[in-house]
Amino acid sequence: MSFKIYLSGEIHSDWREKIANGIKDKGLDVEIKSPVTHHEASDDCGDKILGSETESFWKDHKAAKINAIRIRKYIEDADLVVVRFGNQYKQWNAAFDAGYATALGKSIITLHDAELTHALKEVDAAAQAVCTTPEQVVKIIAYTLQG
Amino acid sequence: MSFKIYLSGEIHSDWREKIANGIKDKGLDVEIKSPVTHHEASDDCGDKILGSETESFWKDHKAAKINAIRIRKYIEDADLVVVRFGNQYKQWNAAFDAGYATALGKSIITLHDAELTHALKEVDAAAQAVCTTPEQVVKIIAYTLQG
Amino acid sequence: MSFKIYLSGEIHSDWREKIANGIKDKGLDVEIKSPVTHHEASDDCGDKILGSETESFWKDHKAAKINAIRIRKYIEDADLVVVRFGNQYKQWNAAFDAGYATALGKSIITLHDAELTHALKEVDAAAQAVCTTPEQVVKIIAYTLQG
Amino acid sequence: MSFKIYLSGEIHSDWREKIANGIKDKGLDVEIKSPVTHHEASDDCGDKILGSETESFWKDHKAAKINAIRIRKYIEDADLVVVRFGNQYKQWNAAFDAGYATALGKSIITLHDAELTHALKEVDAAAQAVCTTPEQVVKIIAYTLQG
Amino acid sequence: MSFKIYLSGEIHSDWREKIANGIKDKGLDVEIKSPVTHHEASDDCGDKILGSETESFWKDHKAAKINAIRIRKYIEDADLVVVRFGNQYKQWNAAFDAGYATALGKSIITLHDAELTHALKEVDAAAQAVCTTPEQVVKIIAYTLQG
Amino acid sequence: MSFKIYLSGEIHSDWREKIANGIKDKGLDVEIKSPVTHHEASDDCGDKILGSETESFWKDHKAAKINAIRIRKYIEDADLVVVRFGNQYKQWNAAFDAGYATALGKSIITLHDAELTHALKEVDAAAQAVCTTPEQVVKIIAYTLQG
Amino acid sequence: MSFKIYLSGEIHSDWREKIANGIKDKGLDVEIKSPVTHHEASDDCGDKILGSETESFWKDHKAAKINAIRIRKYIEDADLVVVRFGNQYKQWNAAFDAGYATALGKSIITLHDAELTHALKEVDAAAQAVCTTPEQVVKIIAYTLQG
Amino acid sequence: MSFKIYLSGEIHSDWREKIANGIKDKGLDVEIKSPVTHHEASDDCGDKILGSETESFWKDHKAAKINAIRIRKYIEDADLVVVRFGNQYKQWNAAFDAGYATALGKSIITLHDAELTHALKEVDAAAQAVCTTPEQVVKIIAYTLQG
Repeated sequence: MSFKIYLSGEIHSDWREKIANGIKDKGLDVEIKSPVTHHEASDDCGDKILGSETESFWKDHKAAKINAIRIRKYIEDADLVVVRFGNQYKQWNAAFDAGYATALGKSIITLHDAELTHALKEVDAAAQAVCTTPEQVVKIIAYTLQG
Repeated sequence: MSFKIYLSGEIHSDWREKIANGIKDKGLDVEIKSPVTHHEASDDCGDKILGSETESFWKDHKAAKINAIRIRKYIEDADLVVVRFGNQYKQWNAAFDAGYATALGKSIITLHDAELTHALKEVDAAAQAVCTTPEQVVKIIAYTLQG
Repeated sequence: MSFKIYLSGEIHSDWREKIANGIKDKGLDVEIKSPVTHHEASDDCGDKILGSETESFWKDHKAAKINAIRIRKYIEDADLVVVRFGNQYKQWNAAFDAGYATALGKSIITLHDAELTHALKEVDAAAQAVCTTPEQVVKIIAYTLQG
Repeated sequence: MSFKIYLSGEIHSDWREKIANGIKDKGLDVEIKSPVTHHEASDDCGDKILGSETESFWKDHKAAKINAIRIRKYIEDADLVVVRFGNQYKQWNAAFDAGYATALGKSIITLHDAELTHALKEVDAAAQAVCTTPEQVVKIIAYTLQG
Repeated sequence: MSFKIYLSGEIHSDWREKIANGIKDKGLDVEIKSPVTHHEASDDCGDKILGSETESFWKDHKAAKINAIRIRKYIEDADLVVVRFGNQYKQWNAAFDAGYATALGKSIITLHDAELTHALKEVDAAAQAVCTTPEQVVKIIAYTLQG
Repeated sequence: MSFKIYLSGEIHSDWREKIANGIKDKGLDVEIKSPVTHHEASDDCGDKILGSETESFWKDHKAAKINAIRIRKYIEDADLVVVRFGNQYKQWNAAFDAGYATALGKSIITLHDAELTHALKEVDAAAQAVCTTPEQVVKIIAYTLQG
Repeated sequence: MSFKIYLSGEIHSDWREKIANGIKDKGLDVEIKSPVTHHEASDDCGDKILGSETESFWKDHKAAKINAIRIRKYIEDADLVVVRFGNQYKQWNAAFDAGYATALGKSIITLHDAELTHALKEVDAAAQAVCTTPEQVVKIIAYTLQG
Repeated sequence: MSFKIYLSGEIHSDWREKIANGIKDKGLDVEIKSPVTHHEASDDCGDKILGSETESFWKDHKAAKINAIRIRKYIEDADLVVVRFGNQYKQWNAAFDAGYATALGKSIITLHDAELTHALKEVDAAAQAVCTTPEQVVKIIAYTLQG
């Protein structure tokens, strides 16, 4: 049975690809899941499928609820949740996922630059490891599975 | 038995006092809990109690872990968690608390300006109500307890 | 510590009063909770507190989510959930509450006329007792507490 | 591992087939479960297997309890529960299933005509999406699995 | 807060009184709960409250379901469940309660004569202590609370 | 994925074989588990593996604890627990298993002669079906899986 | 409602008194629980209450099971578990309690000299704080309750 | 589906190999998991992957947290946890694992020499069996799976 990971957070850099490639290169038996990372598809899924809203609040609301079907399924299935925070955006959904996964008793790893340490201290305090590069995440997964 | 609420998030405005005063004015039987809201006390508790660290990462880590004793206790006790996001800061801890409370099956209410709607859509989607003023939060609590 | 009951369902007859009076007459130590039973207040709470919606779907949605704060709190606190179905309305919320309470492992009692037996068989099958009068409900509570 | 859905509710229209066909057409890896939808088989299973009852209450009771073995198994296994309400019948079992699934933390989608919105507001408020056509349900599942 | 115990099983000897008196004599802060121990009241509660059945199976069924409201409430509240087996009767309900309490993670104590040891080995294996006299049960409770 | 059942209780008749044969004849996808049904092997496993005891109490205790590894594993895995009571023995372990399975939220079916109805009313009240023959058990499983 | 703590571990120094006195001096609303700390009473409770054993294994076994009634009750009730390791003894029960409390989601604080850091790293890694003096434990509790 | 075991504790003798060989010899369908048993790799994983620490406390802390990802995953997956205590070391992590597994409701078996009986009585009291040789562990697993 594969080790299951969920990659939550930032969608504007290639950290997911780096982790996926690292896992592939090392031949690790890992099943990788992510949210829908296509920004527009994610924002518009409610309106596109269920009809458009005149108020942006409800457009966002419908989309976020539909996206949550996928996100919660994969977090609940995961053995490990990796949560990435980029330097620019607020990414409250990533912190929400981290809190959600923590309350479910999942192991989490955070991935962010050192300059975010103070702002992320509560999230980091709930993590099993705090990484600054995708390579470190891959190494931890490799160590977890292979020693 | 009092209705228990936990007030998570922003510490730079008087929203907690407004909610507390509103609850008092209406004579509601509500027990209000918050994190330690004194910024420096919260940041320094680890170093002050357990000895100072040379690296800021570990200073933050020790402090955040000690603060978590209080935060998790009060979230787990709460009937309702109110999560406030101000316009300026990242407040990832507030979003983390929201995710944590959601996974425990707690009712949550978010409190933020309309301009944050898009950025907070995933958190709002998990909330029972999205408020823009402390008065609205008080009204919902009053309605919940008194109809 | 009082025995806690939650009275879910029909709001168009005086069954709640009959149960409350019966409990009072017998001097039972029971704490009784109900949803907001004022029909308009319940329907309009979202618009009144958070601002009015142009679409009735969202008006209903906001109201139902706010009402759920109270309903879930009291069902989760309850030792026993009594679910009343009148002959006229669809009362899907009552059946929803019954399913919700059942999954939480709560004891439930249903209260409805015999003519609804076939339509309610799945709900009745999850109940510890099926009553046709509020007096029977009171007697079961009295028996539960006093033998 | 397939994504598992359970289709609860109305048995008098072909909505289940439409969802099944839509899933097949899109080649989605979804395992679909339903209650026993043959009306008479479902009503008579208790009497047929365990012996006939003279009172219809007990006939219904025995049947509903046997049916619950299947229903609860499939709801507990499901990643997503779709609950369909037709315009005609009371379908309290569908609302019961929705409440049961919600308390277990399952994602639910409701499927009903707009004219039922007010009557179903509490059930809809617990859903991740409210659909009016089986096609919309299929689209949400496709989006959930494929983005 | 009192230490809560539930006394399950045999109703044909005075073991409950002996435990209650022992607890009173030692001045222990213990809240004692039991099922309805009046044999006829317990057997007839269904028929008396909800109307008489022609078939004894359903008479028993209705009574047992009503009795379960009390039994499960008190087992779920208990810190310790004492389960008494007399030498004569089958007392399957006592063994059922023991299994139920064990799965909930409750501490259980069994109370029975040595001659039942072999027949009760599975129940005893789940117990924190196996007593042959009510005095031993009282001593264990006293030790638990006072050292 | 197979439907999993656990067959608890009486070991002195061939009811397990009848159920197994019935399931095979109908070609049902069911995985069947049982306790160790060889009486002596079950009684002696503790002494044989871990060394003999001079007191029969401890011999029984060691055996029962080892047997519990298997029993609990299979009950926890089961979708349905069938509990058989013969007319002769006390079979408290069967009633214990029924209580244990009930507290875990498992569906249970009881299997016993009508003459045991009164003595087993509390166990039957927790069951989804009360059968008198293995054939009925097979029919319920077939109906559950195939309608 | 008082904040509840459980003090697990070493019984050969006065660390419990120091914590109790510190809490009293600061006037904190804390309910303190401990295991039975009288060494002989704890070792002999099984034999004394239930009759003496010839084999020391079973003497220990009976005593440890009786002691577990108290220990688990107080750990399950606790908001915070403090686990003390002295330098001399193996104190596996303290580490067991720490693991037990961690799996229940309790906050734990460890209390031990720096020289035990390497041997206790896995336990410390599960703790919210690692203290070397009882005064530090008191300060953390004071900070948790008063900021 | 294989029976899953986790082997916790001592890393200085060949008990894991003996159990693995015994399982292989008997052809048992068992999946065996262990922590990383290479002492240095386990101690240094934090520093090696995430950068070296100047203080040994934090070096140990980082390593222990990373190791916990693996340990908790495998304990949570396990049907049975075997916990080995050697005579020399403190092995608090083994006792921690035993407590953790117990609180999750896992079956545990302890494996240690008779001379450790008194010191390990609380851990043994939570175990389904107390073994002194790896062969006994294998026999219990064989008995559990094959009778």
